[in-house]
Amino acid sequence: MVLTVEEVTDKSLAALRNAGVPEQHAQTQLSLLLEAELRGVASHGLLRLPRVIERIRNGVCDPGTVGKGVWAMPSLYRIEGNHGLGPVVALDAIAKISERARDTGVAVAAIRGCDHLGMLAWYAERVARQGQILIALTISEALVHPWGGSQAMLGTNPIAIGVPAVPEPFVLDMATSLVSMGKIHDHANRSVPIPEGWAVDQDGRPTTDAKAAKHGAIAPFGGAKGYGLGLGFELLVASLTGSALGRDVRGTLDSEHHCNKGDVFIVLEPQEQSAQIIGQFMDALRASPAAEPGNPVRVPGDRARSKRDSSLQQQITLAPAVWAQIQDMARNDRAQSNTKTGEKINAT
Amino acid sequence: MVLTVEEVTDKSLAALRNAGVPEQHAQTQLSLLLEAELRGVASHGLLRLPRVIERIRNGVCDPGTVGKGVWAMPSLYRIEGNHGLGPVVALDAIAKISERARDTGVAVAAIRGCDHLGMLAWYAERVARQGQILIALTISEALVHPWGGSQAMLGTNPIAIGVPAVPEPFVLDMATSLVSMGKIHDHANRSVPIPEGWAVDQDGRPTTDAKAAKHGAIAPFGGAKGYGLGLGFELLVASLTGSALGRDVRGTLDSEHHCNKGDVFIVLEPQEQSAQIIGQFMDALRASPAAEPGNPVRVPGDRARSKRDSSLQQQITLAPAVWAQIQDMARNDRAQSNTKTGEKINAT
Repeated sequence: MVLTVEEVTDKSLAALRNAGVPEQHAQTQLSLLLEAELRGVASHGLLRLPRVIERIRNGVCDPGTVGKGVWAMPSLYRIEGNHGLGPVVALDAIAKISERARDTGVAVAAIRGCDHLGMLAWYAERVARQGQILIALTISEALVHPWGGSQAMLGTNPIAIGVPAVPEPFVLDMATSLVSMGKIHDHANRSVPIPEGWAVDQDGRPTTDAKAAKHGAIAPFGGAKGYGLGLGFELLVASLTGSALGRDVRGTLDSEHHCNKGDVFIVLEPQEQSAQIIGQFMDALRASPAAEPGNPVRVPGDRARSKRDSSLQQQITLAPAVWAQIQDMARNDRAQSNTKTGEKINAT
Repeated sequence: MVLTVEEVTDKSLAALRNAGVPEQHAQTQLSLLLEAELRGVASHGLLRLPRVIERIRNGVCDPGTVGKGVWAMPSLYRIEGNHGLGPVVALDAIAKISERARDTGVAVAAIRGCDHLGMLAWYAERVARQGQILIALTISEALVHPWGGSQAMLGTNPIAIGVPAVPEPFVLDMATSLVSMGKIHDHANRSVPIPEGWAVDQDGRPTTDAKAAKHGAIAPFGGAKGYGLGLGFELLVASLTGSALGRDVRGTLDSEHHCNKGDVFIVLEPQEQSAQIIGQFMDALRASPAAEPGNPVRVPGDRARSKRDSSLQQQITLAPAVWAQIQDMARNDRAQSNTKTGEKINAT
């Protein structure tokens, strides 16, 4: 389905309103999903809207709250998410720590129990454009097996790093899993085998059968190092936020459980003038000798930004089923609606 | 050469004293190198002592300074390293930010221009044992090619994460390069080819010839993701510290240049009680189903700790050439000595 940004915006906001989401929170949630869509990160795009709404209707997400934050210490802001929408709670927390970091040099938000944050690049880019560095960490339900292990014990545990640069900030956003569970589902839907090494089945045996992999575990990226990193991020988040860990994490993929994961944002003040130097170095990287002629070296974020620039005036392509769900949720009022998203959207 | 810890300590301290290193600084520098040796990380062990001393003798390292630190903001400590010994400057900075973080929740040290930090696990373990979280980042001379590139543009850019846990802290310490340059040198010395994908030669062509790889560039670990991460760390460090970047970085491998790289330490206050929970989760990981029966899942740091425990009462094995250099440097006084370490110690 090829649609205009306006069409998608109208229906999506109506769907969120129908679910009782306050106007400003609906705008925030949609803006995040739309940005993922425009950057070509469909796994974190509108695909996720029906689940967001289903969670609200099931009473496991409270769309009206920004959580309850306290300055536990002068540079450490602890937030009970109170099951609020991920981007709503996170943006409020980031605004507070960004302001504080301008006075203290660094400030941290340790959030527990808000819903899925979505694409971390969105937060990193906002903060970097305001002239500050952001490190963002979040965790998910256990989908990844330890290196040398065969059972899902860790989340896909992404990191985002935003660094101010001229003319465009540096934005890295990557999971510590080798691939996303969404990619495995996509292979299963198309009955295409997955490459060796991507996943194990539910009995922990290496598999190239995408359907079997759906019930198993994904490999960490980069072998033992990627495993160490994903584990390090999960422990760091749990240590700072008191969130659940490993197989106890709930609510990032389902519609039935309160979300008990944690998120950490660290905002830091860069050196003056550094944005110019960082921008020049990014250009030097792009101009450095390529491994394959005609295929220049990229800096993380380049592809998403060029995709976004070409999408902005244009159209969004959605799976017909997703668009049908959104239209349905936009049409019905809360009392009538009983839409089911059916299959888990495992696109973490 | 199999030696006792005492023998190695005596000669090494004598060598450092001969080079004019104050007693306490010599103890700090040696304690770091010895700990790497005892953990089985020979690339960051006594092998590096002759270069440390050579740099002092050449006047590019000042063993007497802890650098000049200022609290640029209440939680941000900026340090001009003034060419001090890496562990001496870093430990002083970490002590300051650890104390500050107890009041503020988080504090950062942004260091520019001290010498090589050595094994980051040493710092992470100290801080975690004191009950605080540490994130440590440092950069090195350009040895790693971008993903899709063919020239060394980035350092090996390691990260360490220390998280308090009961009974033993979590300690991750890993480079973002696929292998160390030391490993490539080791293959070259033994005339053994390196596996495909490890490195390119000086013309940017993939090579399995270890001698050719010495003059080329190492691959990032984990493909595009590891490249993104190593780059993100380098930009974050440069943005916070104002350090040199990429091919402009000097002094981490040679004996002729002042070191102009940057280092970042972030100390954070964990939630109360989290150490117990983290420790239990680490045990759950170790007990989770293994991919190969009899080869249990490990947590980063396990192998180093078990190696350390078995080494502690025992002996250290050094390459005869390294021990000869240390003995020579211990014997001669500063005026007489003119030892050359010859070949670059590329063990980053």
